[in-house]
Amino acid sequence: MIFKKRTHTCGELRASDIGKIVTLNGWVDRRRDLGGLIFIDLRDRYGKTQIVFSPQHNYEAFQIAKELKSEYVISVTGKVERRPKGAENPSIPTGEIDVLADEVQILSKSETPPFLIEDDINVSEELRLKYRYLDLRRPIMQANLITRHKMAQIVRRYFDENNFLEIETSFLVKSTPEGARDFLVPSRIHPGKFYALPQSPQLYKQILMVAGFDRYFQIVKCFRDEDLRADRQPEFTQIDIEMSFVTEEDVFNIVEGLMARLFKEIKGIEIPTPFPRITYKEAIETYGTDKPDLRFDLKIVNVTEIFKTTEFKIFRETIEKGGIICGLNLKGCANYSRKQIDELTTLAKNYGAGGLVHFKVENGEIDSPVAKYFSKLSLQKLKEKMDANDGDLMILVSDEPQKVYSILGNMRIELGRKLNLIDEDEFKLAWIVDFPLLEWDGEENRWVSVHHPFTSPKLEDIQLLDTDPGKVRARAYDLVLNGNEIAGGSIRIHDAQLQEKIFRLLGISDEEARKKFGFLLEAFKYGPPPHGGIAFGFDRLVMIFTGMKSIRDVIAFPKTSSAISLMDEAPSEVDPKQLEELHIQIKRED
Amino acid sequence: MIFKKRTHTCGELRASDIGKIVTLNGWVDRRRDLGGLIFIDLRDRYGKTQIVFSPQHNYEAFQIAKELKSEYVISVTGKVERRPKGAENPSIPTGEIDVLADEVQILSKSETPPFLIEDDINVSEELRLKYRYLDLRRPIMQANLITRHKMAQIVRRYFDENNFLEIETSFLVKSTPEGARDFLVPSRIHPGKFYALPQSPQLYKQILMVAGFDRYFQIVKCFRDEDLRADRQPEFTQIDIEMSFVTEEDVFNIVEGLMARLFKEIKGIEIPTPFPRITYKEAIETYGTDKPDLRFDLKIVNVTEIFKTTEFKIFRETIEKGGIICGLNLKGCANYSRKQIDELTTLAKNYGAGGLVHFKVENGEIDSPVAKYFSKLSLQKLKEKMDANDGDLMILVSDEPQKVYSILGNMRIELGRKLNLIDEDEFKLAWIVDFPLLEWDGEENRWVSVHHPFTSPKLEDIQLLDTDPGKVRARAYDLVLNGNEIAGGSIRIHDAQLQEKIFRLLGISDEEARKKFGFLLEAFKYGPPPHGGIAFGFDRLVMIFTGMKSIRDVIAFPKTSSAISLMDEAPSEVDPKQLEELHIQIKRED
Repeated sequence: MIFKKRTHTCGELRASDIGKIVTLNGWVDRRRDLGGLIFIDLRDRYGKTQIVFSPQHNYEAFQIAKELKSEYVISVTGKVERRPKGAENPSIPTGEIDVLADEVQILSKSETPPFLIEDDINVSEELRLKYRYLDLRRPIMQANLITRHKMAQIVRRYFDENNFLEIETSFLVKSTPEGARDFLVPSRIHPGKFYALPQSPQLYKQILMVAGFDRYFQIVKCFRDEDLRADRQPEFTQIDIEMSFVTEEDVFNIVEGLMARLFKEIKGIEIPTPFPRITYKEAIETYGTDKPDLRFDLKIVNVTEIFKTTEFKIFRETIEKGGIICGLNLKGCANYSRKQIDELTTLAKNYGAGGLVHFKVENGEIDSPVAKYFSKLSLQKLKEKMDANDGDLMILVSDEPQKVYSILGNMRIELGRKLNLIDEDEFKLAWIVDFPLLEWDGEENRWVSVHHPFTSPKLEDIQLLDTDPGKVRARAYDLVLNGNEIAGGSIRIHDAQLQEKIFRLLGISDEEARKKFGFLLEAFKYGPPPHGGIAFGFDRLVMIFTGMKSIRDVIAFPKTSSAISLMDEAPSEVDPKQLEELHIQIKRED
Repeated sequence: MIFKKRTHTCGELRASDIGKIVTLNGWVDRRRDLGGLIFIDLRDRYGKTQIVFSPQHNYEAFQIAKELKSEYVISVTGKVERRPKGAENPSIPTGEIDVLADEVQILSKSETPPFLIEDDINVSEELRLKYRYLDLRRPIMQANLITRHKMAQIVRRYFDENNFLEIETSFLVKSTPEGARDFLVPSRIHPGKFYALPQSPQLYKQILMVAGFDRYFQIVKCFRDEDLRADRQPEFTQIDIEMSFVTEEDVFNIVEGLMARLFKEIKGIEIPTPFPRITYKEAIETYGTDKPDLRFDLKIVNVTEIFKTTEFKIFRETIEKGGIICGLNLKGCANYSRKQIDELTTLAKNYGAGGLVHFKVENGEIDSPVAKYFSKLSLQKLKEKMDANDGDLMILVSDEPQKVYSILGNMRIELGRKLNLIDEDEFKLAWIVDFPLLEWDGEENRWVSVHHPFTSPKLEDIQLLDTDPGKVRARAYDLVLNGNEIAGGSIRIHDAQLQEKIFRLLGISDEEARKKFGFLLEAFKYGPPPHGGIAFGFDRLVMIFTGMKSIRDVIAFPKTSSAISLMDEAPSEVDPKQLEELHIQIKRED
């Protein structure tokens, strides 16, 4: 069908266009029949324009308009007019005008869509994913993908300006399962052999540093065959970065510049740089997590020292067993009822606490069911240490350190929300540094890398590798934003001997190392530069910038939590001939 | 190791920096010991700088320098000096200066590399691919990937400026084998089911048009499990484009703007737009191919008419059987020797000709072993038709049309090169249009799509679908550059009824269509806009812009022609546990 092409988009016409003859192409968003006229909101990616069909003005067009239903695609030609007084719509940019139709052409028809094409719909996500092409017509989803596009553009321009090269790494790579499960791709040409889809381009970006590319980035799809949690996808997008001849501060500078640029251009916000650096230890001890939400204070206070010699049995015994006592000061909550206090206790218990001790501060006095077990002096010290004043409620938890931090860290987040301490328009970034290099895996009975086996230990901790590996800090860092880990990276080992030592500590045999990472180790024989990098979860970053609650709302075609694409129904059964060619067969469970 | 970080790159220092104390980091490119001094060319991505070690100036640094070998990574600090008169190197930007070393630190050592890190090396491609990190250190390979990065940046900016959105489509999609073989990815969660890696985002970009995104592009990896030809890779990169509410000319305009931008910014060349449009028929009949190299003339001339009634038996019989007689006029080749003529005949025979008839034009006379069979008049007509003058050599081939075009098309290319008719610095672009929609597959005994089944027929040819499908022209187009097809696309069908008709013609049953493309057909029920698009082979485009002969030279980690990555040795055997989890087993051939 030959159709009349648009002269303008549906978001373009203004009062200054009044009198022009225009042609618009788009979707029928809404039709209203009113006072013998037909009104159509015509929609495209750029906006909506009201079209008026009048039988007096053009009978033929009016007759066609009578057929129009939601989501029909039409081409309409007519004159731009000023809307009658009182009929303007100031909430849309085209609200001053409408187009009086001289001619209309139906380009394609539509069945009744399974849900309305508007922002607030109350339908299951399954239905939205099945009819994703309709879901994506909703203005909010269009806006999300437009923001995603803009962010990717900004990221690429920023790195280009800073002398980074975007270099495409391979998607059909060697399987090196370490960490997550690989997706495998059977080879047709080489029976019994498989490619893997990359979990990240980690080894390849390090190879690019050995190759002398100096500054690399890539916005790239990565693949992990894991059981999916709410905010994970089997394929996800990473902003991947690697730099040569650098230390941590160089990576921080580049990333801070990137974040400042994104906040400025996308949200119009100036964020101060450099970002605070918080050690892992401090983060855990102060916020109970290595991804603290810094939009509110409510810090964890360690008051163990005060209760070293207390008569309160639970505290004393905990301390004697190496445990600690920490608390949160809930400002202005001294007026909590018995019921509210019980709720706090339940909350604490849900996070694993044996119980919760609380102290109200009112009229200079400390009130608590357990007050009698404590000396005036220790209660006074407690008040001072926790900076508690009249009207405040102190809550204390005692247990082994890790548990205390985890319980109070979780309560902190929960209470931060509940007490309205969080400004949703604020964005607080920080670096978490000095992570431990290794952690003991009790099940496998061996040390495992906290980050990955190529992460460099801190130089001053290297001698601890032989004596106390658990104490060795890594040159690893995470970037946290409002309680989300949005990026993580490290300075890498570029010394073959040190790398071998780490492999030995991790219980990775020479043969295993050669089999899995052989090509990187081989490359390291030919002059690897000092290097380091970082990677961002791009989906999550876009989610935060668009204010969405799910990464699925910023991905065009996401999969469900059971890794199904409801629209195209992947994965699906395939032709036996295809499997034959790939030298594999399906193994039926017995 | 703590190392002294660079103050400058190795390509940065100029005469204006003389006197500065600087630190450089890089690779030892070359070491020369001369007159009691040690000279090092220090290399990084940005260039090379000469470092001088003098025992008189700094004994300690000199002692360390004595250890230095090629590809060692060092940090060196010293003063920028003017090179002595006569020692300047005007061929490099840093050639006026050197750095007199005060201090040097070996950051990492290197074994002797298997080949020299320089542009002209004479080693097997296998060795280069195995040690890709060394191969990529060569300045020419660095330049190739830098150009690739720049081109991708330009493409993205251009589309952004033109209101296109880059939207990431999925990599784990439904298998819809049509055309090439799919790479498959077994699902762990859904036993017996498989994802496919996309051969192109074709269906998904059309879905994005249905979703109303209006203008889409993506630079994206695609996958085809084919037996590899010299310039094919199992994974390759495409610039993918789709637009709504457009006709051919809109696609042409956008693409012409893109090409003009790339030529301007990468090569500093203004290329005239619009590009010529050549019909498929004209291309075949004039150049013997649908991807003509337009840098030189040497057109095929059809002289069948002249010989309709000739006594020359071979010609007459060919014509009687529906064949044709065409020729090329080799300007200035009348002096070809018997041997040279024989070589031409061999060439023609290699391309499938039964023989070659030739006519020399000398002193106004036509000379040929077969001249006696022809009338003066027909020889005169031949000369005129072929625009032959003194000194020219006409060669004629007679056979069925397809064969004649193919033979002379191939000879045209070969002779264009041999006769130096091609200006290697010239870039000639053209659109090939009006491709046939369908071609008859004699093996499968059915019509198959020349482009793909979603390609729209030309509106004026639709009625031929019922009567003479082979005559139907498609709204498909290719962009050719210097004899390469660099992009191809079409206006799509957006009418469900027409689409069904095409499926029927292709012998695709309703059920098969529903199974393979069901989600697109389903989407087309809800108001698909008229749309069309195009896709570029990005690897080949970069290859042409960098003047390389192989796409492997513009891909960081290419695979061999048997789809092996020699560096990481993918594909490889995997842990049986991995296959177990994927519910598959290897089928050993008996």
